[in-house]
Amino acid sequence: MIVSWSLSDAGIPMQTMNRPALFSEHPALSRLCAHLARIADVRAAAALLEWDQETYMPSGATGVRAEQLSTLHRLAHEWFISEETGVLLEAAAAAVSGWPPDDLAVRLVAVVREDYDRARRLPPELVAALARTETEAREAWKQARQENNYMLFAPYLEQLLNLNREKAEALGYEAHPYDALLEQYEPGMTTADVQRLFEQLRAHLVPLVQELGGQSQPAHAFLHRHVDAERQWKLNRMLLEVVGFDLQRGRLDASVHPFSTGIAISDVRLTTRIDPHDFTSGLFATLHEAGHGLYEQGIDPALERTPLADGASLGLHESQSRLWENLIGRSLPFWEYFFPHLQRLLEGVLDDVSLEAFYRAINRVQPSLIRVEADEVTYNLHILLRFELELALLEDSLSVQDLPEAWNDRMQCYLGLRPVTFREGVLQDIHWSQGAFGYFPTYTLGNLMSAQLWEALEQEIADVAVYIRRGDFHPVLAWLRQQIHRYGRAWKAPVLLQQATGNQLRVEPWLAYIRKKYQALYPTASVSWS
Amino acid sequence: MIVSWSLSDAGIPMQTMNRPALFSEHPALSRLCAHLARIADVRAAAALLEWDQETYMPSGATGVRAEQLSTLHRLAHEWFISEETGVLLEAAAAAVSGWPPDDLAVRLVAVVREDYDRARRLPPELVAALARTETEAREAWKQARQENNYMLFAPYLEQLLNLNREKAEALGYEAHPYDALLEQYEPGMTTADVQRLFEQLRAHLVPLVQELGGQSQPAHAFLHRHVDAERQWKLNRMLLEVVGFDLQRGRLDASVHPFSTGIAISDVRLTTRIDPHDFTSGLFATLHEAGHGLYEQGIDPALERTPLADGASLGLHESQSRLWENLIGRSLPFWEYFFPHLQRLLEGVLDDVSLEAFYRAINRVQPSLIRVEADEVTYNLHILLRFELELALLEDSLSVQDLPEAWNDRMQCYLGLRPVTFREGVLQDIHWSQGAFGYFPTYTLGNLMSAQLWEALEQEIADVAVYIRRGDFHPVLAWLRQQIHRYGRAWKAPVLLQQATGNQLRVEPWLAYIRKKYQALYPTASVSWS
Repeated sequence: MIVSWSLSDAGIPMQTMNRPALFSEHPALSRLCAHLARIADVRAAAALLEWDQETYMPSGATGVRAEQLSTLHRLAHEWFISEETGVLLEAAAAAVSGWPPDDLAVRLVAVVREDYDRARRLPPELVAALARTETEAREAWKQARQENNYMLFAPYLEQLLNLNREKAEALGYEAHPYDALLEQYEPGMTTADVQRLFEQLRAHLVPLVQELGGQSQPAHAFLHRHVDAERQWKLNRMLLEVVGFDLQRGRLDASVHPFSTGIAISDVRLTTRIDPHDFTSGLFATLHEAGHGLYEQGIDPALERTPLADGASLGLHESQSRLWENLIGRSLPFWEYFFPHLQRLLEGVLDDVSLEAFYRAINRVQPSLIRVEADEVTYNLHILLRFELELALLEDSLSVQDLPEAWNDRMQCYLGLRPVTFREGVLQDIHWSQGAFGYFPTYTLGNLMSAQLWEALEQEIADVAVYIRRGDFHPVLAWLRQQIHRYGRAWKAPVLLQQATGNQLRVEPWLAYIRKKYQALYPTASVSWS
Repeated sequence: MIVSWSLSDAGIPMQTMNRPALFSEHPALSRLCAHLARIADVRAAAALLEWDQETYMPSGATGVRAEQLSTLHRLAHEWFISEETGVLLEAAAAAVSGWPPDDLAVRLVAVVREDYDRARRLPPELVAALARTETEAREAWKQARQENNYMLFAPYLEQLLNLNREKAEALGYEAHPYDALLEQYEPGMTTADVQRLFEQLRAHLVPLVQELGGQSQPAHAFLHRHVDAERQWKLNRMLLEVVGFDLQRGRLDASVHPFSTGIAISDVRLTTRIDPHDFTSGLFATLHEAGHGLYEQGIDPALERTPLADGASLGLHESQSRLWENLIGRSLPFWEYFFPHLQRLLEGVLDDVSLEAFYRAINRVQPSLIRVEADEVTYNLHILLRFELELALLEDSLSVQDLPEAWNDRMQCYLGLRPVTFREGVLQDIHWSQGAFGYFPTYTLGNLMSAQLWEALEQEIADVAVYIRRGDFHPVLAWLRQQIHRYGRAWKAPVLLQQATGNQLRVEPWLAYIRKKYQALYPTASVSWS
């Protein structure tokens, strides 16, 4: 599915991709890949069971499904960390030694070696303790949230922090324990990198949000007019076709929380939400998940059933979803193209609304307490807050006891709002209850990457707005596939970003994008836009 | 889910069912069950992947899905036949030795021992050769069918017969190689049993079909009036609720060929077909699959994740589908209850049709060439023919070369029709191409069992027709659960049948049911009805 759009290859040789009979040049390589393929199959089965759980599974099957998933995950893990993997890896490493460092087989062996070493560094007792505590913590978090009682969750958070400190020690790190945790989600990035980027961002973003939040907001009541489910499905499916998501190799279904999952490169599943009184909520969820899905569908098919058939990092994955949701999906050229289609599909619902009014409504900036409802300007402040707090917790410079107050203070400081309940404050996200520390920053890293990639894309395809205004997304998708998608996990995100944009990750492209866009939307705001 | 309807227990002590912490009385038993549960989880995952393949999987994922399934099946098989299973079995057998023979733990050990010994008797090379040849044969069969060219399939059929002869020798048998194959699908039944039953059936059935086929047929064009998909879904879902299928622990979806699958006792999935010009096709498919599904949902929940959580045999499974599809679903009391509901649901489509005309139309007897389209009277002749031919092929008294002619001759003789193409003759079924010899007779055994069970049920619940006419299916379902469903595979079908009906399998109940019903429907037919 490598598209024909041709651009200079930015240094990674094309001939390593899409070769027939990839990884079969040497018996040792074939043996390693057959072993890894069986593990990939078990993981794919687990992914399908998880997808099914959120979409079609009868509610009565919850208990037995948890057992099935636990068996499959445990099996894949045990298989992967087995001595057998080690022996096969050794043989494959010997076979490819001396091959060019950019050969895909060399990359495969390197990536698997790294995964293997990391996984083997975790003592089985720690893995078991984490799994058990995460299960208990998730239940405690649900109850704490429901009863708005932080103290029900606090002891579990304490335990999870201790276990994650142990985990960091076991995994190893150079500068900071948080590095070891971050590496799980964002390989190649360090705590110092994130801190530097986030400081720069905060310095510019806090005053900007303060100013924009004080502006009079555009009308948006029409976004909540009734649109029946059937029309919304039609609309969301049309959007998928428009952006180039392949429905022969993927699906769109409904779930409470939209998500995307790659069962295989040829089987990528998205979900969206359908709310009759909030059709743009589903529309942007679909574009967001389509961004994730296009990434997965764009991986070189030769990587199917290998550990390279995945995104390079959570941040890079998020950059793809944000690019389609925000950089394209909330842009004026996109709506110049799509608004007439939307009006037609909605059969009268938006006939009295102008393109400009619609564009303003979907781009209004409004500080709020809940991360998942935040607009693209304020969103990153929610992440900065979480990153700073989890770092402080891990360093023990903030106690679990004091966390809610610290949360509320920082919220007041960044967004000018103070949560009244724990539910709309510290208990709003599931992540910590799942033991996921080091995960939150990837959201903002993704936002930054999306703008940096877009800037590079605009330099290569100067008239990209013309294509978009015409509804032709092929050049954009082709560029992303060429630069990012096809490589899967063969290269880490910083390498791909450097190749695609000529730079390490920076905050300037995102700030420039935001300033340019919102200056036009809020011309009366007295912010320094430069 | 054991229902409260109480009836004498026909000899199998109730206290063995639904005990808390079943199989945890002894550590050796717990260890065996934990091992078997993990295998059950992998099998459940495979079942979900297969269900997904027929319902929601994007077409582009066909290739990778085959790999995933092959990995899961191979894994479950290797795990089960491992030395580990043998060691755990020995320990568990020692632990339960001396326990009452009807204790569920004793039954579990016995059933698993039998499965294990059978599976271990097959040399891995034979298992591999069968898997490979079945895959090739299925493709050849598809092509042969498409091109109406039997010779494309013949060499594969020959190979599969040879491999199945080897398989029978490896599995072992007392009287006939076919016994070993039949035992895979219908444990406890022998070739001699089937031959005896089928001879009796043929003697009565051939003249009956000949006579009924010559009768003038009732009007049935109204069955092909247009009914849109939405109304059909409503109808089919209502039928499931009516018969007591639990949609909290199951689903109904669409597929090309209707089927049912138990992912778990709490997760039983049915499919049906929706043809806008043939609503009864979907309606009876739903009732048929609901019969299978009610069986799976009725298994004692204590057996979840054990090898006992399945039907006792294919025949007994089919008896449940046929009972709900035919004995109930094509009966007059059922339509006395449901016809007004059907008329209302179909909003005018059947307003000019009387209950009697509808009942006659859905019960017309019409010899035809295609098994899956046959009515309940002629159906068994399709099976007799297949059983006789596969037996002759296995014994080498019929050559693969001569099979099509033998098929056509026998079809002429039993049903008075002669296929013109291979497609409507010897190539119509997929079974032989999957290496399934010994499978076909289970369909007719199921029909016979359904009538024998119904006869016993009518003796216990004399006014069952009154309940059905009222739309109350609880007594029927309760009786089936009490007598059959809850036991799963703890006892073989002949044992359950003996307990439930006081007899071994006989043809008389089915013949009596058919005679009584069709005498009323075809009063002018000059058949000896007694």
